[in-house]
Amino acid sequence: MTKKTIVTCALTGAGDTTGKSEFVPVSPEQIADDAIAAARAGASAVHIHVRNIATGQGSRDVGLYREVVRIVRESDVDPVINLTAGMGGDLVVDPQDPTKQLEGTDLVSGIDRLPHVEELLPEICTIDCGTLNFGEGSNIYVSTPDMLREGAAKIQELGVKPEMEIFDTGNLWFGNVLVREGLIDPPPLYQLCMGIPYGAPVDAGLLQAMVNMLPDGAEWTSFAIGRNQLPWVAQSVLLGGHVRVGLEDNLYLRKGVKATNAELTERAVDIVESLGAQVATPDEARDILGLNKKG
Amino acid sequence: MTKKTIVTCALTGAGDTTGKSEFVPVSPEQIADDAIAAARAGASAVHIHVRNIATGQGSRDVGLYREVVRIVRESDVDPVINLTAGMGGDLVVDPQDPTKQLEGTDLVSGIDRLPHVEELLPEICTIDCGTLNFGEGSNIYVSTPDMLREGAAKIQELGVKPEMEIFDTGNLWFGNVLVREGLIDPPPLYQLCMGIPYGAPVDAGLLQAMVNMLPDGAEWTSFAIGRNQLPWVAQSVLLGGHVRVGLEDNLYLRKGVKATNAELTERAVDIVESLGAQVATPDEARDILGLNKKG
Amino acid sequence: MTKKTIVTCALTGAGDTTGKSEFVPVSPEQIADDAIAAARAGASAVHIHVRNIATGQGSRDVGLYREVVRIVRESDVDPVINLTAGMGGDLVVDPQDPTKQLEGTDLVSGIDRLPHVEELLPEICTIDCGTLNFGEGSNIYVSTPDMLREGAAKIQELGVKPEMEIFDTGNLWFGNVLVREGLIDPPPLYQLCMGIPYGAPVDAGLLQAMVNMLPDGAEWTSFAIGRNQLPWVAQSVLLGGHVRVGLEDNLYLRKGVKATNAELTERAVDIVESLGAQVATPDEARDILGLNKKG
Amino acid sequence: MTKKTIVTCALTGAGDTTGKSEFVPVSPEQIADDAIAAARAGASAVHIHVRNIATGQGSRDVGLYREVVRIVRESDVDPVINLTAGMGGDLVVDPQDPTKQLEGTDLVSGIDRLPHVEELLPEICTIDCGTLNFGEGSNIYVSTPDMLREGAAKIQELGVKPEMEIFDTGNLWFGNVLVREGLIDPPPLYQLCMGIPYGAPVDAGLLQAMVNMLPDGAEWTSFAIGRNQLPWVAQSVLLGGHVRVGLEDNLYLRKGVKATNAELTERAVDIVESLGAQVATPDEARDILGLNKKG
Ligand SMILES: [Zn+2]
Ligand SMILES: [Zn+2]
Ligand SMILES: [Zn+2]
Ligand SMILES: [Zn+2]
Repeated sequence: MTKKTIVTCALTGAGDTTGKSEFVPVSPEQIADDAIAAARAGASAVHIHVRNIATGQGSRDVGLYREVVRIVRESDVDPVINLTAGMGGDLVVDPQDPTKQLEGTDLVSGIDRLPHVEELLPEICTIDCGTLNFGEGSNIYVSTPDMLREGAAKIQELGVKPEMEIFDTGNLWFGNVLVREGLIDPPPLYQLCMGIPYGAPVDAGLLQAMVNMLPDGAEWTSFAIGRNQLPWVAQSVLLGGHVRVGLEDNLYLRKGVKATNAELTERAVDIVESLGAQVATPDEARDILGLNKKG
Repeated sequence: MTKKTIVTCALTGAGDTTGKSEFVPVSPEQIADDAIAAARAGASAVHIHVRNIATGQGSRDVGLYREVVRIVRESDVDPVINLTAGMGGDLVVDPQDPTKQLEGTDLVSGIDRLPHVEELLPEICTIDCGTLNFGEGSNIYVSTPDMLREGAAKIQELGVKPEMEIFDTGNLWFGNVLVREGLIDPPPLYQLCMGIPYGAPVDAGLLQAMVNMLPDGAEWTSFAIGRNQLPWVAQSVLLGGHVRVGLEDNLYLRKGVKATNAELTERAVDIVESLGAQVATPDEARDILGLNKKG
Repeated sequence: MTKKTIVTCALTGAGDTTGKSEFVPVSPEQIADDAIAAARAGASAVHIHVRNIATGQGSRDVGLYREVVRIVRESDVDPVINLTAGMGGDLVVDPQDPTKQLEGTDLVSGIDRLPHVEELLPEICTIDCGTLNFGEGSNIYVSTPDMLREGAAKIQELGVKPEMEIFDTGNLWFGNVLVREGLIDPPPLYQLCMGIPYGAPVDAGLLQAMVNMLPDGAEWTSFAIGRNQLPWVAQSVLLGGHVRVGLEDNLYLRKGVKATNAELTERAVDIVESLGAQVATPDEARDILGLNKKG
Repeated sequence: MTKKTIVTCALTGAGDTTGKSEFVPVSPEQIADDAIAAARAGASAVHIHVRNIATGQGSRDVGLYREVVRIVRESDVDPVINLTAGMGGDLVVDPQDPTKQLEGTDLVSGIDRLPHVEELLPEICTIDCGTLNFGEGSNIYVSTPDMLREGAAKIQELGVKPEMEIFDTGNLWFGNVLVREGLIDPPPLYQLCMGIPYGAPVDAGLLQAMVNMLPDGAEWTSFAIGRNQLPWVAQSVLLGGHVRVGLEDNLYLRKGVKATNAELTERAVDIVESLGAQVATPDEARDILGLNKKG
């Protein structure tokens, strides 16, 4: 716990949550406003998805990203900007004939998940390190070694830091392979995602085992979803990691009380400080991760 | 280590191994002969895939399974028969356009993976508890919650014991959900598969964490592939599990020395006994797992 | 995290700390006042040592305990009263001739550590489950199996709940033996003490391993000393344990800022609640531990 | 598992075992003969205590050590010689008045545990890194920080490699302190002793936690006593450690079958090799540990 703790606020995600909480931001202005509010509340970084304004569904529209990023960059706060590059991996199959692709499928190549990254050059973009079932039904998130290597090479060429989203231990293994192959510049950054069905469950012993598998010099952060989000801030700090909160992963401050992104960020900052750790400023986060500031 | 240790020999698998070792059995007679030899060497159970005789490739042909099972059942040994039901989950996508399915795809519903189980009523069949990347390239093993629930219900109706193949911790989580939903009769049986890229890596701390996540009363077994196969027999016994060896997972006795299934079984028996544990006879294995003997 | 979390405040201890912080209570009135203030700040229980008024040194004087307990019991708060029974185990040897006992030695039998417990019948008293080096130099804390069995039998006869102080994994092993021998009534209560040189160090993996060794139905709590005290509140809750803070183990709120017992208790309550857990009232603590209220 | 595995045979110890097995060597000739037989069976190193010829009790007589070492050094085998320096730490107290020292007490300073090391200059001698209860009753093994620092400095001056005997996690912590203080030359060598009541119990999760606490570059070995001895050879190798067997720790090959030192060594070699590891020759052990060969 000697270095500073990077607090990321994951503002909105792509989940079907806009009907569940009025605080989930949808329009570029709302998302940017939440980014700014989170930064004011102490977030070192903001993790951004965009949503279709009409439907509230997650979107890969570069124009929407452009608008969010513009507003944040023109504001008087300066959080590290982390854009998702995970969209475009959704495959929904017919369980009776899984060769049939159903509605909800939005599946493109590794490179085609990156146009907004290429144009907007965020300091960080995500790269989801494997294929797995997402939730019940027959929804698969698809990200294969071929696609990942191609995507990682492109991100490296752009000078953007990839945040490797690790949904299970096999994803971590593949992340380590990317690092060994030189496709990730040091320090590698791993996001250990816990509690997303059916990836790694929320389990402290498992987190410890995963941390033990990271290469020397790695930076890591971890989050858990739902009611485990805030406790996991503590667990992550206690094992030496950075943290993430926000409405992408959890809608509540406590049972029955809906949260805003700024409130979740404030709580994360409180927890970090209650543990004797200190929250990194955006520039301290840039130092820790060796980021190239753009824009 | 008070109960007996079940030693399973996984005879042939479906991997591209027939060109790498002349000992990998291909025809039903060869596979059955290896089953009998493994049983004589001390295997409590045999895990069986079949292969196309002409090509050596893995097959779902019920006739081939029928022949293997007939020969084993007519022999003078009586190992527990465990048939794979994992075939029919292969999806190969084009990384440039992952909605395109390439050659190598063999993808059917959960129920369509079970006709040989329905006809031959083995004591155990496998059920692969998730979707993940298999190896490099763009090969995905597909098994979604919808498909798994339907398959598990069918297996339960047949009175066959499902061996849940756990390729990563999210698979274990979903296996626990199946148990809680009553789709698996007690005791549930988990196979913790380590070292298959890109599932759970070979790591003792991870195995310990996974074992800690199992429900009370669960039986479990674990294997690791390649050169870790024999050491992992020891690791599994030391943490209280059953074991698996065989040419499906490893071709070598030691560096440069190709193995037969009987030899790998002998080595597993030696290791189990060197640790002060005792190998279960087939009937002791039936008792431990609550199996219904058929045929 | 479904049950309530018991917060114990360890008010003063016996360490050489009175010169290091003016907030360490010394007289019975000061100690009782801190007990009352801690209870008002949310402590479910208070752990009490007494000190010689003139010297500030730890004491086994029953009269001093009597006075502290009287004041607390007559107050308008009702925390669970936990009296140390660890005093009287100090052996200081001459390193050049370790058969020679030096000044600082205060070494009596297991029974002779209990007169204040016998008279005052607290709801909980401690029992220190082993012998080990305490700090640098040649200071040994002595508590042998013979002495522990005799002490445990006496505590059981008195109807007091023993809190087993576990300074290292061998102490935990012996605690489990006491439980198996029927010398501890259910539920057994273990205090996992981390970071006291040279017992168990502050290490999350070690805490997890220790928790895994506890018998079914055990209640446990854990603390770490010094600057790890507050973070460890979170670690303990995250692994399912109760918590302890207080000036016995740590003098600071944060670097450079000296704490009172009430402040440390408030911080512990904040951390527990920030994790989504709830602090047990004294009566809820009595329910959880099956305590017999006396006095 | 890339480096070679050092197999140590602990020939006789000081326990009350000579009446329990006729194979426990007592006289210098018997102990030396067992050392030679163990070396022929594949032991890289032999760990030596001596015993009073008349009583069979453990002894600190330099003449006895001199005789054992002479015979081994004059033989045609050349195992690494590891002499215990743990004798002389026994304190037996009266539980009714623990200031009284009872028969069985044999307690001398850290320096006075070393005359045979000083004269005979073995390549390794042990140093027991803490104070704890040994077994039931009121038997304490005494080794305080003062005594340990003085002993470690002397051993360092003699150019002998200390093997730090770690009986619990607090001992490991203190061992790390000795290393940080420069009192142990690199690479430090830790012996993780499991299952000796009341030190660290035999538990794989605990061993993993302890291994995680070792400093970079440390060499470690582990053993478990009694019926866990042979399984623990596997556990130690699987986590990357060296191993120890022998009659000091275990009298049986399997239930009801008494072992010789050579037989236990053979079994250890078999287990190491069955795991795909290779046993170090004495000279390879010298290389790994950076030993100075004497004599
Ligand atoms: Zn996201
Ligand atoms: Zn198979
Ligand atoms: Zn105390
Ligand atoms: Zn010894």
